[in-house]
Amino acid sequence: MFIYADNAATTKMSRAAIEAMLTCMEEQYGNPSSLYMLGQRAKEIIEQAREEIAAVIGAQPGEILFTSGGSEADNQAIRSAARIGEKAGKKHIISTAFEHHAVLHTLKKLEEEGFEVTLLDVHEDGLVRPQELEAAIRDDTCLVTVMFANNEIGTIQPIREIGGICRKRGVLFHTDAVQAVGHVPIDVVKDNIDMLSASAHKFHGPKGIGFLYARKGVRLTNLIEGGAQERGFRAGTENVAAIAGMAAALKEAAADMPAEAERMRGLRDRLIAELKEIPHSALNGDAVSRLPGNVNFCFEGIEGESLLLLLDDRGICASSGSACTSGSLDPSHVLLAIGRVHDVAHGSLRLSLGEDLTEEDVDYMVRNVKEVVEYLRSFSPVWRDLMSGKTPFIL
Amino acid sequence: MFIYADNAATTKMSRAAIEAMLTCMEEQYGNPSSLYMLGQRAKEIIEQAREEIAAVIGAQPGEILFTSGGSEADNQAIRSAARIGEKAGKKHIISTAFEHHAVLHTLKKLEEEGFEVTLLDVHEDGLVRPQELEAAIRDDTCLVTVMFANNEIGTIQPIREIGGICRKRGVLFHTDAVQAVGHVPIDVVKDNIDMLSASAHKFHGPKGIGFLYARKGVRLTNLIEGGAQERGFRAGTENVAAIAGMAAALKEAAADMPAEAERMRGLRDRLIAELKEIPHSALNGDAVSRLPGNVNFCFEGIEGESLLLLLDDRGICASSGSACTSGSLDPSHVLLAIGRVHDVAHGSLRLSLGEDLTEEDVDYMVRNVKEVVEYLRSFSPVWRDLMSGKTPFIL
Repeated sequence: MFIYADNAATTKMSRAAIEAMLTCMEEQYGNPSSLYMLGQRAKEIIEQAREEIAAVIGAQPGEILFTSGGSEADNQAIRSAARIGEKAGKKHIISTAFEHHAVLHTLKKLEEEGFEVTLLDVHEDGLVRPQELEAAIRDDTCLVTVMFANNEIGTIQPIREIGGICRKRGVLFHTDAVQAVGHVPIDVVKDNIDMLSASAHKFHGPKGIGFLYARKGVRLTNLIEGGAQERGFRAGTENVAAIAGMAAALKEAAADMPAEAERMRGLRDRLIAELKEIPHSALNGDAVSRLPGNVNFCFEGIEGESLLLLLDDRGICASSGSACTSGSLDPSHVLLAIGRVHDVAHGSLRLSLGEDLTEEDVDYMVRNVKEVVEYLRSFSPVWRDLMSGKTPFIL
Repeated sequence: MFIYADNAATTKMSRAAIEAMLTCMEEQYGNPSSLYMLGQRAKEIIEQAREEIAAVIGAQPGEILFTSGGSEADNQAIRSAARIGEKAGKKHIISTAFEHHAVLHTLKKLEEEGFEVTLLDVHEDGLVRPQELEAAIRDDTCLVTVMFANNEIGTIQPIREIGGICRKRGVLFHTDAVQAVGHVPIDVVKDNIDMLSASAHKFHGPKGIGFLYARKGVRLTNLIEGGAQERGFRAGTENVAAIAGMAAALKEAAADMPAEAERMRGLRDRLIAELKEIPHSALNGDAVSRLPGNVNFCFEGIEGESLLLLLDDRGICASSGSACTSGSLDPSHVLLAIGRVHDVAHGSLRLSLGEDLTEEDVDYMVRNVKEVVEYLRSFSPVWRDLMSGKTPFIL
């Protein structure tokens, strides 16, 4: 048995994406900036991909900028908004405490450069309260950046409402939609989004490619200076193959989305219901406003790392949080942001489901997670103290 | 007949590179930051690639940082050196007038931020004079950045000597080696290089990936903030497949280099000798200290763009200069830097040869370039004025 349940970390490439890339790698290898036909065909591939990607999120092709991934897109979006704000004498940014580090660390840098950052509370359910956002907006606020769906606990923010408030107040709104694009419907116009970041490898496209949507009129600042590619806003020979692969993957994801999302939600909810039977466990994040494939639990009295390693032995790939911080011993900043205490946050498990998941896979995961949690607790000193009443249960 | 003679713009991927990528795309799709085996195998692929790449240029694996390409590597190298310099109160940078725009535009930004930049003369032969570099170094010089080999005219700079001077004077030395890596021998230790940028798609690897060599002890500054990938200096999920493809391509290029370079130089020199027979033409750049595959000519009285389009009709992919600036109507800044006047610089042709080139290909290119130049001159008003003595010949 092998179940890949870490699709929030990365996904297996779709056949369509691989084929699209292979065509470029083997035949359409021209440089899109070259005048001759081989180059112009590469250019056409890029522009077709741009159209297809724009169409999926309701954008215009000229509003899509290709980047090396979600982190670069996040960095560029925030830096661009900061530059726009700076010119207007506005140096206040609003975000949340449970953003991806590509956002949080960029904001940290901006703080060092004289910006002021307000991080909104995401409450126990992992959801931003629009009225709290509105109250936080100041005259010098230049940017609100709130992620579309959280990468750890999968909660989906009230993006349209947040965007509406920002639009009304004349503040740029960026959303890190890396976990959302290809998984839930997005319409940048209806959702009032000014800038949006996405990464192909989260929706069965290749790694190393992503895009930044920036509404027409939002002036971008380069992170990478050089050639005139991407209308001068992102230098470097275009990654033609990966761009084609990203478009192929996103088209497929968008086409399959309604049916797949429905099916996934069903499997997710069954998985959640079954795992809730484990004593002293808790689902992290709201159960409803949640990515179709996200399951995230805390189990009291165990270490997440041991849980993952034992699940790996049983053929289940899962994570305790973001892959990007897996080298760290700190508990997840996301779980801390929703109020989990350190000890509980350490015992977390994220199962992010893939579209190929079956009912049998759910059964297998439930059985094995239950067994492994029980096994780990059987020799956990923390669990012994809890059971003996020496320390009180939290969950 | 189809001859791809624009290998300085980009190259066709090698079979080994494609196969290495396919393995990752189809099977080893894990996130290298993930704890489970699928993730750890991806991590191993990256670290093996790092070792292989480091070995080719005489570096240590820990000195190789993966980037999305040469432009990003150039930007990060220069930004890092500027930051180091700034902290030491040194804000003077030395470079040349014919660097790639990834270097020149980054320097331009730094000038706006208060740095002072000295651009060295590259003379008619397209070569920096080490003694002039030495004379330009000041007490507040924090960086010398000189490209290894020029992307348009292929001249190879006296890198080891330049590096030696920088080492002696305690100034960081970066080289944009995008055109050189995989084509000429490089040893970062012997060549006294502190930082070096490379791009995989210039040596039959994939687009969208490159690397920055930074000698141990040279503190890098992030361009992209976020996750802790690449020891914290380059955020974003690693592009595992492309990294593997780059390593496979570079290994192959390094193994074949001595024999291939010798063969290429032979073809190049014959091509140069034959094209020199065209009246009022001139080779751009030194004939000896030159990339094995680079041929770059100016032909008086014609427009480079028309030349390219007619050659394309005849199955020859060539360029007039850098692909990165092909959208621009300005003459090449490289040709201007070596003293070509505007009119002459407009009539330039770069043929950058690939390893699969044959003697017959050379014959075909010679015949067709001669025919097309003659044809274009037959109705060129500029040529008519030259021939009638109304304007003097320059070449």
